[in-house]
Amino acid sequence: MSAVPDRPAASALQVLENQIHAALGHRPLDLLLRNVRLVDVYRETIVETDIGIAGDRIVSVLPGGQRQAHHTVDAGGRYALPGFVDAHIHIESALLTPDRLAEVVVPTGTTTLLVDPMEVANVAGYEGLAEFLRALPTLPYRIFVQVSSRVPTAPGLETTGGELGPAEVRRALAWPEAISLGELDPSKVLGVQAPYLRKILAAHARGKIANGHAAGLEGQDLEAYAAARLADDHECVTLDDVRARLALGLSVIIREGSSERNLRELVAGIVREQLPTRHMLFCVDDKFCADLVSEGHIDYNVNEAIRLGLPPLQAIQMASLNAAEHFRLDDRLGALVPGRWADLILSDQLDPIRPAQVYVGGRLVAEAGRLVVTVPPVKYAAWLRNTVHVKRGTRAAHVALKVPGSRVRTQARARVIEIVPDQIINHLVEADVPVVGGLVQADPAQDVLKIAVVERHGKNGNIAVALCKGFGLQRGAIGGTVAHDHHNVVVIGTNDDDLAACVRALVRLRGGFAAVAGGQVLASLALPLAGLMSDRPAAEVNAALDALNAAARELGSPLNSPFMTLSFVSLPSIPELGLTDLGLVDVRTRKFLPVVLADARAAAPR
Amino acid sequence: MSAVPDRPAASALQVLENQIHAALGHRPLDLLLRNVRLVDVYRETIVETDIGIAGDRIVSVLPGGQRQAHHTVDAGGRYALPGFVDAHIHIESALLTPDRLAEVVVPTGTTTLLVDPMEVANVAGYEGLAEFLRALPTLPYRIFVQVSSRVPTAPGLETTGGELGPAEVRRALAWPEAISLGELDPSKVLGVQAPYLRKILAAHARGKIANGHAAGLEGQDLEAYAAARLADDHECVTLDDVRARLALGLSVIIREGSSERNLRELVAGIVREQLPTRHMLFCVDDKFCADLVSEGHIDYNVNEAIRLGLPPLQAIQMASLNAAEHFRLDDRLGALVPGRWADLILSDQLDPIRPAQVYVGGRLVAEAGRLVVTVPPVKYAAWLRNTVHVKRGTRAAHVALKVPGSRVRTQARARVIEIVPDQIINHLVEADVPVVGGLVQADPAQDVLKIAVVERHGKNGNIAVALCKGFGLQRGAIGGTVAHDHHNVVVIGTNDDDLAACVRALVRLRGGFAAVAGGQVLASLALPLAGLMSDRPAAEVNAALDALNAAARELGSPLNSPFMTLSFVSLPSIPELGLTDLGLVDVRTRKFLPVVLADARAAAPR
Repeated sequence: MSAVPDRPAASALQVLENQIHAALGHRPLDLLLRNVRLVDVYRETIVETDIGIAGDRIVSVLPGGQRQAHHTVDAGGRYALPGFVDAHIHIESALLTPDRLAEVVVPTGTTTLLVDPMEVANVAGYEGLAEFLRALPTLPYRIFVQVSSRVPTAPGLETTGGELGPAEVRRALAWPEAISLGELDPSKVLGVQAPYLRKILAAHARGKIANGHAAGLEGQDLEAYAAARLADDHECVTLDDVRARLALGLSVIIREGSSERNLRELVAGIVREQLPTRHMLFCVDDKFCADLVSEGHIDYNVNEAIRLGLPPLQAIQMASLNAAEHFRLDDRLGALVPGRWADLILSDQLDPIRPAQVYVGGRLVAEAGRLVVTVPPVKYAAWLRNTVHVKRGTRAAHVALKVPGSRVRTQARARVIEIVPDQIINHLVEADVPVVGGLVQADPAQDVLKIAVVERHGKNGNIAVALCKGFGLQRGAIGGTVAHDHHNVVVIGTNDDDLAACVRALVRLRGGFAAVAGGQVLASLALPLAGLMSDRPAAEVNAALDALNAAARELGSPLNSPFMTLSFVSLPSIPELGLTDLGLVDVRTRKFLPVVLADARAAAPR
Repeated sequence: MSAVPDRPAASALQVLENQIHAALGHRPLDLLLRNVRLVDVYRETIVETDIGIAGDRIVSVLPGGQRQAHHTVDAGGRYALPGFVDAHIHIESALLTPDRLAEVVVPTGTTTLLVDPMEVANVAGYEGLAEFLRALPTLPYRIFVQVSSRVPTAPGLETTGGELGPAEVRRALAWPEAISLGELDPSKVLGVQAPYLRKILAAHARGKIANGHAAGLEGQDLEAYAAARLADDHECVTLDDVRARLALGLSVIIREGSSERNLRELVAGIVREQLPTRHMLFCVDDKFCADLVSEGHIDYNVNEAIRLGLPPLQAIQMASLNAAEHFRLDDRLGALVPGRWADLILSDQLDPIRPAQVYVGGRLVAEAGRLVVTVPPVKYAAWLRNTVHVKRGTRAAHVALKVPGSRVRTQARARVIEIVPDQIINHLVEADVPVVGGLVQADPAQDVLKIAVVERHGKNGNIAVALCKGFGLQRGAIGGTVAHDHHNVVVIGTNDDDLAACVRALVRLRGGFAAVAGGQVLASLALPLAGLMSDRPAAEVNAALDALNAAARELGSPLNSPFMTLSFVSLPSIPELGLTDLGLVDVRTRKFLPVVLADARAAAPR
């Protein structure tokens, strides 16, 4: 029995015929799950009954204890609820290939991920996406695709490995796994940029929705965004955001990820004001492997919502039926009724829900918090495991930061990216930095470090060097090939030798993370798939991340997640600054800024 | 400004760009509807605000009194609510072409019909459907198509003009106007008939749903029906039906048509038990022109539901958002929010709703119960207006009913179709009927009349003759070319000369209804479009129907709607009997029955 999304293939008819025969009692069921308390998300009630399954679908939910079945399981009165749907996830953030992610998310009750694989697309384009999705047929959960709408995110401001123009998006929208156009950021809409609007129209022409990303929008801007026919927003931070979006017909996808933690404020308000939850869903957006392991996935969102006072049935609807209907998958999933996939959770209780068993397509895939099926490792094409192609950046001279003008200068006034711990925004500050031989030096004493982005898609050998405050390193360098959204190499450190050593280490890893000092690699993690994901077990990946974080701490960093923080400094679309391979970007003006200020005061030695 | 459904045509991009510019205030609105109490179906509340419209879509619903607009209308505080959607209608039942139907339904607040044009398809097949839909671009309301799944309804039991096999259905499902596979009757599903299951799979492969028709199903049969992945049922009669369908994930389309009147019982129960209405919609299924005029359309369903205690907001959701979401049209309609079509109703009150103005695509189309736009008459192709091709049936000898055996017999025992007034079911009874010269005669004294179905698609000249009780004619004959679902000619009367005269009258009309006596036409109505619909104004059609009913009464019929009742006697799929051009059908066994019983007792003169 396979968990593959249904396709209208040659055998689809036979499968359907068999299911009707089984429903009618002409043939035995494949599985009879007896004695469940079924969570009926249509009638919003609990029903004591049995569940009959034929092939991968439910065919009966009326009490049917006497039915013939190849296998019968007594569920012992456990609650049966629809498997959870994550309505928006960048799967790459977990740092695991889809097959390796299974053991992390499936035991938590997640049976479907709605994935915007924009990181892979930025690295490897249309062909990379197609290759990435090869994993689907053998997974013990389901993936549907939100076809990434902005690859690159910031055209002209960054070099990416792949691009998805309207033609590529249109082709990808035809895939049976494609359910929507992926999140479109407001700049494209408010700027009335035709190529992106064409992508929205292409999705609708296919009968698919277009996902939003309306961070911070309000008033006329938000109206214009809704007028562009986007369907939802997963960037709500306040209850006012929620109300404003619902009022414009935008569904609200409540996000609780690793860094964006919006659930408590939103759900508390929703409960307090009794807002209708019909158009609310759950997602994590970005959640790291370690957090998924320690905290959970959508089960965490659901249980937190219940803890905050949302009736369990409503919380379960948000994680199942609401997502299915919003994404037009309700002919296949989202409820435990005949005709839908037998993707379900058995739990002893609803407050909180603790998945004792998880079934996908009628197959028991997890039990007591562990995967109970073997997931065949996906053999991705070699080219998708070999995407780090650095033309320059492996030598100290490549990452030097020259001061214009006199070589006798010993100090310069410079722009510095100041990060905000545990957030993806940053601030523009200025600092006086030391200059030696015409080159700006890092100054660990005032926590001003050198940061470099090295183009790694084998295209142009671009390198941009800037300054960054907040990482606290006193020696060495850290870096990685996860660098939103272009995913070039980003390294930060106290000296050019270690910056270059870190780049070399990342090249050897074929992508990943590394911490170096004195030219030696202290810790590393290989992320060979597109330079973004590991195909090793989650425990191994988490151990390597722990070692990396420990190494960064040893080098002086006070940050909880220095590698994650670093991966967002490169983003040219979140204020105030972003560093791409093309230079330091002022996000608001979309213009490049010189790092060293042409300031007479700064130029004069003090 | 056109009310045509959006297509991703060359200009779709410009339209969208303009709407975004208008939303942003870069360009004036086309229409600013100031001072409305907007019914917010997402938040389930009422909001005092303004509605800004650009092109055919809403672009603003925040208070925007100061916005620039080409036209501004003060709505005087009226409620603004989404235009009503009829979720399942056989438009042919109204006897009007879509353009002529506009004046009847649009002033009632209907802005969208979800049409299963199975009658046209039975007469004229795929090409007929395509031609029929040519009306769409010029209508002041919207039509979407539920692609008829069973044309013919009863293969092997009737001759139709057209057939829609899996290939034709697949082609039609690709039309942008196609939103679903039309209602599939249980026999096809419970009989596990592959061609019909292929049609379900084809709809899903297109991302479209498959509509149900689960009349009378329960238990395992209903589960098998749901397992076949059908999405809804509009045949609920009792609250138990509603509960049973919701429990299986089938949406419930509450029907209130001319003869099937299910609303009161269902809504009263829903209110009493506080069932969630999220998966409930409204339809009329079949409603005659006269009833639409006298009673209303979906506004009647909504207002009756409100009168029965359903909160107005829920009743409005059922007529708008719920239908839009169920049929995956929610990117275009179902709510008054930016990005959706400006299809709306203004009403002074919500209990009951009385549409003072109706807008479609931002255009005022009806006011104070009257259409205020001119609907261009649709010039349908000549062949679709010339579909009555009778090879035999125009002479009395054609409609004789021979008794097997001796010509000296004066009486025979025969099967008789006994109609049930105002219902579409009938009963099998027996009667002794007079025989003259070897031919069975009608016997008006015991209300046993001769009834004939004459093949009219120009295919085979079939004629079937039987006996029918309940029409009460004492002389003459009545007949029509509306004869479910094959739509051959059906005539009933007291003598063969008038039966044949009635057939001739119908041929001359190119389809329609006629009442004759003594060879003279007493009243008639031409329905030239496919022999099913008139392209004359509703008032004219209703006057003609009144005259026809008066003529039938004068001929002795006690029935309220003798022509409608007659049109269902021909149906071979509603128990107990149906008369097609191939003979008298036992609906339960799907076998043909002889009219005259080979009964020794009956054969003997008394």
